[in-house]
Amino acid sequence: MSATFDSQYKKYLAVFEERLEKFCASLDCKPDILKDSLVYSLKLGGKRVRPVLMLAVADMIGTGVEKVLNFALALELIHTYSLIHDDLPDMDNDDYRRGKPSNHKVFGAGNAILAGDGLLNTAYSILFEECFSGSEYISAAKCICDYAGIYGMIAGQSADLKHEKDAVPDENVLEFIYEKKTARLITAATVVPSILNGGKYYPELKALGKKLGYLFQLTDDILDVEGNFEKLGKSLGKDKKEGKLTGVSVYGLDNCKLRVDIIGDDCIRIIDGIGGDGAFLYDFVNFIKTRMG
Amino acid sequence: MSATFDSQYKKYLAVFEERLEKFCASLDCKPDILKDSLVYSLKLGGKRVRPVLMLAVADMIGTGVEKVLNFALALELIHTYSLIHDDLPDMDNDDYRRGKPSNHKVFGAGNAILAGDGLLNTAYSILFEECFSGSEYISAAKCICDYAGIYGMIAGQSADLKHEKDAVPDENVLEFIYEKKTARLITAATVVPSILNGGKYYPELKALGKKLGYLFQLTDDILDVEGNFEKLGKSLGKDKKEGKLTGVSVYGLDNCKLRVDIIGDDCIRIIDGIGGDGAFLYDFVNFIKTRMG
Repeated sequence: MSATFDSQYKKYLAVFEERLEKFCASLDCKPDILKDSLVYSLKLGGKRVRPVLMLAVADMIGTGVEKVLNFALALELIHTYSLIHDDLPDMDNDDYRRGKPSNHKVFGAGNAILAGDGLLNTAYSILFEECFSGSEYISAAKCICDYAGIYGMIAGQSADLKHEKDAVPDENVLEFIYEKKTARLITAATVVPSILNGGKYYPELKALGKKLGYLFQLTDDILDVEGNFEKLGKSLGKDKKEGKLTGVSVYGLDNCKLRVDIIGDDCIRIIDGIGGDGAFLYDFVNFIKTRMG
Repeated sequence: MSATFDSQYKKYLAVFEERLEKFCASLDCKPDILKDSLVYSLKLGGKRVRPVLMLAVADMIGTGVEKVLNFALALELIHTYSLIHDDLPDMDNDDYRRGKPSNHKVFGAGNAILAGDGLLNTAYSILFEECFSGSEYISAAKCICDYAGIYGMIAGQSADLKHEKDAVPDENVLEFIYEKKTARLITAATVVPSILNGGKYYPELKALGKKLGYLFQLTDDILDVEGNFEKLGKSLGKDKKEGKLTGVSVYGLDNCKLRVDIIGDDCIRIIDGIGGDGAFLYDFVNFIKTRMG
């Protein structure tokens, strides 16, 4: 990755973290454990892939970073809620997240359920406030909501849960899970800047979000095999141990890597089609392709 | 209760059930278990206290039933999600709801978590759609969201969880839980018709919602001691067995009943202040006061 990319990523990240920090500081809910459990997971860090992507696209197509900032915040709250609920003993049962104990290990499963509910609800409270600014804001808010919901991410989580013990890996099921569970929220990040800007490059940005989502989940599945705990901060080798349906179980490790290259090239072609200064997005694709954590 | 009240209640209920039925029929999410788990809990029945109350208030103050119908639907979805999550083993651990096995007993805890998430998310998808109709619709949607959220119902659930094993019952904590966990959603039912009608009788309807919420929770706590399973359809005597903080543990059974009368009278005075035809609401108060299930 170029030094320019690194510094630009850090710039977007800093803008987002400042907004997130302000949000966390404004939280005033009781009892303390509710507030603490929300803030704990929000501040576990991570690369903030979705908000940074949203800010970058908004910058690139002229929507402007400020206009999407609260949407990026809401999206990160939704992503964080989904991780808290996914990590629960009754779901994926993961004890670690970003190198720290997962929410339910610190606050107990009951409080973790409520923390997730609370983040999801608060995301929409932020988005309803945005709705007063005009109908394109309502459309953008509804887009995030629909992509996170029962026809989007939650459908993917449900399919993931249903098929986690399938003896024979099924490519169609895997595609469904990839698209719904992972790609929809990432697509929200790419299309919201378009919706808030008269639908500029909407088809291209929607296609890009879907491809980036696949890319992200494929590399995630590869990292479960080849990554290391220090960089990833979550339990590894779990997929295979539990016989989970993943890109690796369906395609094999080598073909998975081949697909990463092919889908990465698809992303580049879509960005070419958008025109303008795609430099950051080109590097973003490479950043996802070669990520170690 | 008068025959007029009964028939009017059934009329509101029928309007709501028709809307709910249409909603359930329109659900087309995959995998099947996701759809089935949503519909299962939505169709467990119950008195639909919140939607019926919202429709009645809308009727009384001239907002009109049609205008609030989707808000009533969203509110019932939120209420239903909260019951599914409350019943989870990591929360209240209730095996029965409305006389049937609770969601997690039928679909497993993982799917029940997702069913709750899905209902919450879908409620907001319905409300974002309403937002296109104008700023008062956005205000009404945001009101429901805020009352359901971390400063409302979820705060109450969190406090409930935190204090469930307190050795010494604390009246202040109980009031906090009553107000947040129960009264906020019921207040949403009374104020949404006002918000959609230029704020008509807003202070009175807000006060009424709060009192009705207390009334509802007090009678709930009494029923846990004196009710019977057939009529209530949920496990009874649990509160005492688990040393739970309730109106009965704080005030004692007799004082609890006294409070029901006092708060019932408060409700009547508020309804008097609204003027117009309060007949249905007077009976509604009595209906809550004397309910057996």
